Amino acid sequence: MTNTFEFSPHVNEQLSDAIVREREYIGFYDLCDQDITPFLELAASVKQKNIVIIGIGGSALGASAVYRFLDLVRSFEKKLHILDTTDPLVLGSKLNSFDMQDAYYCLISKSGGTIETVAVAKYIDNEIKLNSENSVIITDSGSMLEQFAHSRGISHFSIPNDVGGRFSVLSSAGLIPLALVGVDIKLLLEGAQKVRDAFFNEQGYCHSLMQKATYYAQHANTYNINCLFSYSEVFREFNAWYVQLWGESLGKKQRHSELHVGLTPVGLIGPTDQHSFLQLIVDGKRDKSVTVIKIKEFDNPMKIPESSFENMESMDIINGYSFSELINMQADSMVEALDALDDIPLDIIEIESVNASEIGQLILYYELLTALVANMLDINAYDQPGVEMGKVILKEKLKG
Amino acid sequence: MTNTFEFSPHVNEQLSDAIVREREYIGFYDLCDQDITPFLELAASVKQKNIVIIGIGGSALGASAVYRFLDLVRSFEKKLHILDTTDPLVLGSKLNSFDMQDAYYCLISKSGGTIETVAVAKYIDNEIKLNSENSVIITDSGSMLEQFAHSRGISHFSIPNDVGGRFSVLSSAGLIPLALVGVDIKLLLEGAQKVRDAFFNEQGYCHSLMQKATYYAQHANTYNINCLFSYSEVFREFNAWYVQLWGESLGKKQRHSELHVGLTPVGLIGPTDQHSFLQLIVDGKRDKSVTVIKIKEFDNPMKIPESSFENMESMDIINGYSFSELINMQADSMVEALDALDDIPLDIIEIESVNASEIGQLILYYELLTALVANMLDINAYDQPGVEMGKVILKEKLKG
Repeated sequence: MTNTFEFSPHVNEQLSDAIVREREYIGFYDLCDQDITPFLELAASVKQKNIVIIGIGGSALGASAVYRFLDLVRSFEKKLHILDTTDPLVLGSKLNSFDMQDAYYCLISKSGGTIETVAVAKYIDNEIKLNSENSVIITDSGSMLEQFAHSRGISHFSIPNDVGGRFSVLSSAGLIPLALVGVDIKLLLEGAQKVRDAFFNEQGYCHSLMQKATYYAQHANTYNINCLFSYSEVFREFNAWYVQLWGESLGKKQRHSELHVGLTPVGLIGPTDQHSFLQLIVDGKRDKSVTVIKIKEFDNPMKIPESSFENMESMDIINGYSFSELINMQADSMVEALDALDDIPLDIIEIESVNASEIGQLILYYELLTALVANMLDINAYDQPGVEMGKVILKEKLKG
Repeated sequence: MTNTFEFSPHVNEQLSDAIVREREYIGFYDLCDQDITPFLELAASVKQKNIVIIGIGGSALGASAVYRFLDLVRSFEKKLHILDTTDPLVLGSKLNSFDMQDAYYCLISKSGGTIETVAVAKYIDNEIKLNSENSVIITDSGSMLEQFAHSRGISHFSIPNDVGGRFSVLSSAGLIPLALVGVDIKLLLEGAQKVRDAFFNEQGYCHSLMQKATYYAQHANTYNINCLFSYSEVFREFNAWYVQLWGESLGKKQRHSELHVGLTPVGLIGPTDQHSFLQLIVDGKRDKSVTVIKIKEFDNPMKIPESSFENMESMDIINGYSFSELINMQADSMVEALDALDDIPLDIIEIESVNASEIGQLILYYELLTALVANMLDINAYDQPGVEMGKVILKEKLKG
């Protein structure tokens, strides 16, 4: 992947020292070095056709992002199903969409006490007993869910203590379901490693990412919305992962001032959302930056035929182009149109093709960018104190 | 549906005069009075199992919103497929998901010259000839697509001139595919009529909607982001429809000042996005209003069983609740938590149950709200000049 932009603020080089220090106690930076043998061994032993994640938020979005990215091209033999809600309508519909007996369940909860996850797990356990043959548990070491795994004899894996939920896609939480479904997790980590190493070892790469982060942080009050305009449906779940990562990491009270700060992520899919959100970007308030993601090589043969619709000959200008060419020309046209406006911060990420290495790169790129912006905004990227009050109120209600 | 809030700004009553005048030349207000007999007759004559929309933006989002809302509960015998992209990966995958021979195609384009729509139509025409037996065309009267319909002998319906694409869900553009798939479009329009009539005839209803609109418009610079937090997956496509309606209508240059104004829509699904976006709302910058949509009666029996997980007995507080109760308690807990903060504008929309009347009401409610806010912001809700430049650049590229 490459990233092109014209941000050129003065960069505070102490920022990279802060990240170097942070790397000592924050775990996501070095997940690409972990030993994945146990995950691969588990994957080799599982025969079920349906891999089911029972998990929500950071326990579902990462695996979903990688799987959906690859599945439209690779079409995995095993299917990944994600139960990340308490909505009975969609739960019922999803449970009807696969054979519950021919399924392997990944119960994923960092704290071990996530209400949605336990509610769904109890429902499924009541239908088909969860046991060592049909399930695995992934949770914090020492959690009550780990205790439950012990008492049932279900194998369990830890999420490292220093890796937060929304940064956990490259830990056991994401890698196990992905390995089970057949994703090349080695290649995924190699992609992440490439970006990690470039950031820590190549001054140019590091400086350029810091420029982007500095621009976002310095303009947080003007450009408080960051649109990710991804030109392919394969990015739909990646966009959702980005929304959680960016929103939940960067929506905080500042450490020293206690001021509310926050950058709002918006995920868009091109060209579809050119017919929905683009008008707002072009003519609306100047409160948005835009990042466009493009795929260089779709490697897909679908073409617009050389045919003429009677009375519509003026449309024959599209004839003979492949759909891949067309979607990329649409992306380029939008970029040119936005560039001409000159007051919308814009950058382009281009990935080579749809494969595990490229999505691994993209993941680490966004995690690093998030960490950098959080440091500049003087906030803790790794906690989420704001969601506690709702949980407390819910527990009171449940007790009646 | 009901809507509860505590906005109480002073309302300029001339606003409702402006809307009364606008109603004379803007068509969406009175679509609920139209004669739907021709749509029902067409629906009765179509035997194919798959109904396929070839259309993008306003030509797809409305039907998609209504269909997805109802389908999880009703599970229609005929399935709606939406081809609203040029992305070859998803196009290929969708075309493989149904029998192209057992499909009825709705070509929908207001202008008649939408590049994405024509590209996909040409591709399909090349596979299975589009003809009077397997397709219908819905477009502006006099467009080149209408001419094409004539030359092929395909029946065609007009979208009224005074109804814009994103306001067209209750015109032929939305009603025909919905009738084809089996949605009760009479009930849908009755819902819309109920809200239209309440707005124009009941002073209290009108005043309360104007208060909400006034609040949004007066605080457009502070609260430039409007989150719609919908508590059920059935709203996912409705959220997408809202994003287009709100963003494309309200992102504009002001008529008199030429200033860029705009309110940014964000669609969220509860409880899933409590684990993604909620932290940003609670602790982030105070730039967001929140509207929560709840379903009063899910009418679904799924329950959390009265079972205990070994070593996790503290989680037994959820036992015996239905999932419907749980999701609504989650919504209520979030509302209470946000309400306690006191500086986040918050309102609640409650719908009775999942049926066509309720979604019809919701659609007209949001169209009216959009029209009101646009009037207050001194912008034209009904054009989209900002997307033209990209189209011009694309046409130049296509010509090589």
